[in-house]
Amino acid sequence: MQETIVSSEEVFHGRLVKLFVHEVELSNGSHSKREVVKHPGAVALVALDEQQNVLLVRQFRLPAAQVLREIPAGTLEEGEAPLACAERELQEETGYRPGKLEELGGIFVAPGYTTEYIHLYLATQLRESRLDADADEFVEVDHVPIKDALAMIEKGDIIDGKSVAGLLRVARKLGL
Amino acid sequence: MQETIVSSEEVFHGRLVKLFVHEVELSNGSHSKREVVKHPGAVALVALDEQQNVLLVRQFRLPAAQVLREIPAGTLEEGEAPLACAERELQEETGYRPGKLEELGGIFVAPGYTTEYIHLYLATQLRESRLDADADEFVEVDHVPIKDALAMIEKGDIIDGKSVAGLLRVARKLGL
Repeated sequence: MQETIVSSEEVFHGRLVKLFVHEVELSNGSHSKREVVKHPGAVALVALDEQQNVLLVRQFRLPAAQVLREIPAGTLEEGEAPLACAERELQEETGYRPGKLEELGGIFVAPGYTTEYIHLYLATQLRESRLDADADEFVEVDHVPIKDALAMIEKGDIIDGKSVAGLLRVARKLGL
Repeated sequence: MQETIVSSEEVFHGRLVKLFVHEVELSNGSHSKREVVKHPGAVALVALDEQQNVLLVRQFRLPAAQVLREIPAGTLEEGEAPLACAERELQEETGYRPGKLEELGGIFVAPGYTTEYIHLYLATQLRESRLDADADEFVEVDHVPIKDALAMIEKGDIIDGKSVAGLLRVARKLGL
């Protein structure tokens, strides 16, 4: 089933992503091309306060051409450990610092064409602590009862993949 | 919160994806660049047989550098309706045709940089029916009790985002 890269061409080298076209040899010996986005990876957090509210951010997403509700998340900086990134991003996006972070595993967001892997965390014991966000990022934060967030998934009001995966993982973990 | 595109450059035009660099005007009047992958969109199916098994496919994914277990899925062809795509892909990847398809909404897989939206379905009343798959795609199919598939998510044996989202949506819908 394995594929072996025969040759690679970097066709784009951007600020966030790179794009490669790989020629691969398939298991039957024939050749094919694969377009692969290289992404640094990311973290996302289901951040739960003591009243069973989750922190959701609203943000305009150009590729979706709309404002989406998502769990807090962010891209790994070069050399940054996922746990440190999770602590940083939560403070930047929501103004809270997690007292406790539990790993929920992770997901490849679209393994057909992008290397992006998101480390998922459950963040609790939240304390107020703000870090400055990226200058080109505008997010609004809501505290939403987790049961309402789960209803939003069913109604189609939360349609971001990592948020659906992360919230449903936590719902299962907590028996909700 | 809105961003307005000021100018766009297509930096790559591939077989599967295109890549654009957009210059945008932010809500505070400043400008920034956005790297956006344009993808045709896709479908994915949680296909459940009468014994409560789900059909999972195993496939080598070059961007993940490993074989992943996923729910059946595929890319929309030009002009193809998502429902027709779902029927086609299930037959190509698993050799079953769904008698019934229920919409589970959909997800943006990574709305920070790709337009890809996946339409999710619950497929039941499966009947044997095979269509030829893409020549460069090799997948193996397993029939897995849905409870085992849910345990695989918790153990980290299913780490594909759409599969985690789809399986957990269905588990919740069925009260599992």
